[in-house]
Amino acid sequence: MDMYEIRFAVEDLLHAYAHCIDSDTLEEWPSFFTEDCLYKVIPRENTDQGLPIAVMYCDSQGMLKDRVVAHRKANLYAPHFYRHLVSNIRITGQQNGVIAAHSHYVVFRTLADPLQYGTTEVYSTGEYRDKIVVAPGRSKFTEKIVIVDTCRISSLLVTPL
Amino acid sequence: MDMYEIRFAVEDLLHAYAHCIDSDTLEEWPSFFTEDCLYKVIPRENTDQGLPIAVMYCDSQGMLKDRVVAHRKANLYAPHFYRHLVSNIRITGQQNGVIAAHSHYVVFRTLADPLQYGTTEVYSTGEYRDKIVVAPGRSKFTEKIVIVDTCRISSLLVTPL
Amino acid sequence: MDMYEIRFAVEDLLHAYAHCIDSDTLEEWPSFFTEDCLYKVIPRENTDQGLPIAVMYCDSQGMLKDRVVAHRKANLYAPHFYRHLVSNIRITGQQNGVIAAHSHYVVFRTLADPLQYGTTEVYSTGEYRDKIVVAPGRSKFTEKIVIVDTCRISSLLVTPL
Repeated sequence: MDMYEIRFAVEDLLHAYAHCIDSDTLEEWPSFFTEDCLYKVIPRENTDQGLPIAVMYCDSQGMLKDRVVAHRKANLYAPHFYRHLVSNIRITGQQNGVIAAHSHYVVFRTLADPLQYGTTEVYSTGEYRDKIVVAPGRSKFTEKIVIVDTCRISSLLVTPL
Repeated sequence: MDMYEIRFAVEDLLHAYAHCIDSDTLEEWPSFFTEDCLYKVIPRENTDQGLPIAVMYCDSQGMLKDRVVAHRKANLYAPHFYRHLVSNIRITGQQNGVIAAHSHYVVFRTLADPLQYGTTEVYSTGEYRDKIVVAPGRSKFTEKIVIVDTCRISSLLVTPL
Repeated sequence: MDMYEIRFAVEDLLHAYAHCIDSDTLEEWPSFFTEDCLYKVIPRENTDQGLPIAVMYCDSQGMLKDRVVAHRKANLYAPHFYRHLVSNIRITGQQNGVIAAHSHYVVFRTLADPLQYGTTEVYSTGEYRDKIVVAPGRSKFTEKIVIVDTCRISSLLVTPL
């Protein structure tokens, strides 16, 4: 693949990923990752100080599936939906067919409870630091580190970023 | 046109469209659409339930021109301007020379009344579902469906999204 | 360079620029500009009326370096960090190897003082009107005009946009 194809493949994966979450088809969310993978949501203050604690941590596709089951069957939370805007995508490295790509995101949250129905707020901003296997059929994340600026999280983080 | 040219033509149309609204040159806004067209702003809750009611509905370029005349001569509203950020552009289909493209938008509104002058707020987030005739000279929308997350609309929706 | 290479070079410069500010490596910020350059932050109301007064004004790389020194050693301000999203990039002209490019930005500010730690707000939206020397090695801004919608600036503008 040439550099143009790689850029577009990375864009396409990031946008399909965001669409999956924003349209609440979370059952497909684990399939954006390889079997062995790392998905981590970590506050910026921890990253900056080299501290390891993450808000979400999954190191296999199976753990991602567990999260979705918990989301659907166990977790209690106020109804809402997300809107991602992902931009400033930069290819930062390439090694053994794995592309490193960084991007900036903002997630807006629209509340869907009767009282605040249809109100939108800035829910989270931050950076994606991804490692991506760019494959002819469909690209996948081997690693997705979400560095969260907004470490004072409004209510709770239940839907993945 | 190859896939690269189509991607760039879609991006260029979306960005020229946003620039037209944000720079308040609304008189040119109808020219972004074909003569026969559909422009619809519909709350996400209606779309999700298959309900048809839209907040704005225009099914010809003439109706779009009417809206602009109303905007300039009849409507009363607090002075403001918009800033669109459009990203996550995905080509979702292609049939008979018409490209289907989805994207995410956020519109920020800056108030221009004496009291709140220069204050910016998140006004609307949502999705564009567009059908686009990509032509050598200038591409146009045959259909632009704006799915609005923020269905509790702050004050009123007077400037198109 | 063909049109594709120019588009990507412009994108890459804009995103590297935003990354430099957002990761607080401001010492590298002046190197994004040519020696002779113009960096200006101007409220939209002034631009619209043809009024010249700017909030920040630097017309050489040296003045940009001064700003960084002031930022590190003299200025007093509440701790915070930025997150830029830059999108809607349009190439608007090309003359003697200098590319004119306009884009839309939003800067989110996350507060880092003990009381409001980790809270994110919309800090500024607006438009970049850039002139860029696109060079094989590294592209640079000869001119970067930041037209600010949010002219009621929250607290003060100390970190560049």
